[in-house]
Amino acid sequence: MFDTGGTMAARRASRRHFIKEGAVFAGGLAGGMAIGANAASGQGLGAPRPGGVVDHPMAYGERSRFVQTVRTPMTMIGHIDLHGHPDGLDARTPLSELTGTITPSALHYVSSHGNNPPDIDPREHRLMVYGMVDRPLVFTMEDLTRLPSVTRTHFIECIANSPRPEEKTLDEMHGMVGCSEWTGVPLSVLLDEVGVKDGAGWVLSEGAEATKLGASMPLGKAMDDVLVAYGQNGEPIRPHQGFPLRLVVPGFQGKYHVKWLQRIKLVDRPYITYWEKHSYTKRQGSRRTGPNRMSNSHVAGAGAYFMEQGPKSVITFPSGEQRLPGRGYYTLTGLAWSGSGTVRRVEVSTDGGRTWTDAKLQEPLQRIALTRFTLPWTWNGEEALLMSRCTDDQDQVQPTADEFPDFWGTSGAPHGNQIQPWRVASDGTVHNAV
Amino acid sequence: MFDTGGTMAARRASRRHFIKEGAVFAGGLAGGMAIGANAASGQGLGAPRPGGVVDHPMAYGERSRFVQTVRTPMTMIGHIDLHGHPDGLDARTPLSELTGTITPSALHYVSSHGNNPPDIDPREHRLMVYGMVDRPLVFTMEDLTRLPSVTRTHFIECIANSPRPEEKTLDEMHGMVGCSEWTGVPLSVLLDEVGVKDGAGWVLSEGAEATKLGASMPLGKAMDDVLVAYGQNGEPIRPHQGFPLRLVVPGFQGKYHVKWLQRIKLVDRPYITYWEKHSYTKRQGSRRTGPNRMSNSHVAGAGAYFMEQGPKSVITFPSGEQRLPGRGYYTLTGLAWSGSGTVRRVEVSTDGGRTWTDAKLQEPLQRIALTRFTLPWTWNGEEALLMSRCTDDQDQVQPTADEFPDFWGTSGAPHGNQIQPWRVASDGTVHNAV
Repeated sequence: MFDTGGTMAARRASRRHFIKEGAVFAGGLAGGMAIGANAASGQGLGAPRPGGVVDHPMAYGERSRFVQTVRTPMTMIGHIDLHGHPDGLDARTPLSELTGTITPSALHYVSSHGNNPPDIDPREHRLMVYGMVDRPLVFTMEDLTRLPSVTRTHFIECIANSPRPEEKTLDEMHGMVGCSEWTGVPLSVLLDEVGVKDGAGWVLSEGAEATKLGASMPLGKAMDDVLVAYGQNGEPIRPHQGFPLRLVVPGFQGKYHVKWLQRIKLVDRPYITYWEKHSYTKRQGSRRTGPNRMSNSHVAGAGAYFMEQGPKSVITFPSGEQRLPGRGYYTLTGLAWSGSGTVRRVEVSTDGGRTWTDAKLQEPLQRIALTRFTLPWTWNGEEALLMSRCTDDQDQVQPTADEFPDFWGTSGAPHGNQIQPWRVASDGTVHNAV
Repeated sequence: MFDTGGTMAARRASRRHFIKEGAVFAGGLAGGMAIGANAASGQGLGAPRPGGVVDHPMAYGERSRFVQTVRTPMTMIGHIDLHGHPDGLDARTPLSELTGTITPSALHYVSSHGNNPPDIDPREHRLMVYGMVDRPLVFTMEDLTRLPSVTRTHFIECIANSPRPEEKTLDEMHGMVGCSEWTGVPLSVLLDEVGVKDGAGWVLSEGAEATKLGASMPLGKAMDDVLVAYGQNGEPIRPHQGFPLRLVVPGFQGKYHVKWLQRIKLVDRPYITYWEKHSYTKRQGSRRTGPNRMSNSHVAGAGAYFMEQGPKSVITFPSGEQRLPGRGYYTLTGLAWSGSGTVRRVEVSTDGGRTWTDAKLQEPLQRIALTRFTLPWTWNGEEALLMSRCTDDQDQVQPTADEFPDFWGTSGAPHGNQIQPWRVASDGTVHNAV
């Protein structure tokens, strides 16, 4: 899907410089320019508006008082105990109560690795790009908003988003995924500006939070489709999602999407950071050694870890703990996604996998984005076992629980993309059948 | 683009009934079923969660305290004085401060025709579809969420969204537009359920607000792509946007997208409602008589009115009252849209229209949706006149101010889709040059 840096020399020769040699933007770096509500940033950052406006009910529209959907705070996320914090700094997306494919920013899942979001003044925030580069650079937020920008819709999913038999609801089992419209600067633009030196093959990124989550990705991925994002669903990224700046690494597991991004270092090998060593490395060997799946041979002695999320789908209605009020017509609906590309097909079974019917996919089909599917279903009032199965444009097929170890090459793969069965009892109640 | 009902008989013969004859869903209508947080609706409507959760900072993520972007309340919208209300019940989208193409629901423009949003309990809300139909039906919200649903991204724009020389900012002149991911039931599904009688050619819709905005659309449009929407950007539509139910009439001017929707009546002719007569009817004749532009011949004596919005684009950065901090590299960016289809091309001029360069369009290109465009620009520090020009997939080209009367067939057309010029002065300040 991408090279690992072999063509960097060619890229450097032809690259376009947005920034003059020896200086970034005139005035941009020296004093940390103030970003006013109508300044170049276009981000509405700065001093509050004249008195009274913010408190006007028209200023920022609220939800109906009848809409009570919230994220449920957790003291730990998934089974990774090191994330735990007694105040509950993580939370899952309430997938079962959402429509469409965009996750409202206020309800997007949160994995904070034990941190409250840093309270960052965007006028003071800096991103440093350094390491094996021709000229290290420091960017202000205003510098970044002047550079070429792109907008793309992508999901982000925690590697630990896995169903377990003892859990009951869709949100408990699959709520560590969200999908947003991200806007930002392609990381490739920044790397072209600094000039990547020969021999650099990996990119290490680091956030501003107390425990400084870091993640290594291959240079090829960094040059391909990674965003340094400042916008989410039309507005500045919210604090829980990394305000004012985060990486979006399409298709890679959540930890790569480093929040509160402040440093990007070009290096010659994958670093195994504190978090990668303790929480994201599996000791089992993997038979799966594509470019986005690091094998033992890459990290001798540290075990394998995974980057790219597999093809996955879940039926969101009906799902665990919901109840069908009676027999009759329903619209089954759910979400499908793949870290490797575009969802090409979703099949649904209402008889436990004996027969499958193609669901309707909501267009436009977007690469590495949540994709809504629907299927008409008339429930006859008898017990039913509902399942969905995703196929992506790389011809990867979502595995059953039995096929799961073979799909990943290990029984210990953390990404829970096995088919999720829901059992509809004859009284209409819906149950997790993992 | 659509017929006006001629094929309804054929459609009726082959249509699929989701609802049994003589009754809607079992139990659905009798008592107005409660919709709990995990009930079939999937909308999270109902009683608050157990104590304390909503107040937890993780429950519903807030913006950074450094992000102060708000809508500015207005006592009137555009130049239509009848909308006026001293408390300011209308507001414009702060387009100049947004990224990407999705408008955050809390910042979407509001045109309320003098009403505060009705405080509607969704468990009590009903939609009646009646008039020239075989069997009138009343739908609860739960009924609607059980029917086939689709998700589509569309803009909505007020017909009065026009630039004026005395206005200064992008938001003042063009802020009555927003773009959302809408989820709902195709209106065609509901019309198939009730059975449209021969002779019915128009659809009249009405909201629950005190002044009961009504709008007539041709049956052909209603059967084509209109949504009865309950979801906006992943969550239930917010009160200012029509909670719990609104029409989305893609490409038609804002007033057709009736909020707080409670009645749909099949009729045999266009009704000229109170609002249409007072605010949305132009006395001038129109030479433009496509299927979506009603001419004098349709409404004798009432003058022409317009339905479908024209092709339009605006540069959002840099725009009026912003200031470039100095010469050098910038990314020009803006939004383009058309009520007739998909944006195919946006050209940008930095020399007042003498030369034009194709901007890059953000994919995926979506029908009747805001489309982000960008263009690299190195400002040399001299005065510049910036313009953008949209061409849609119907080969319609956004007109200059001079071409505007000819485009619409009248000098009095209310939709301000003429090219918006911004003058960049040598000190970097940006000014409206309409």
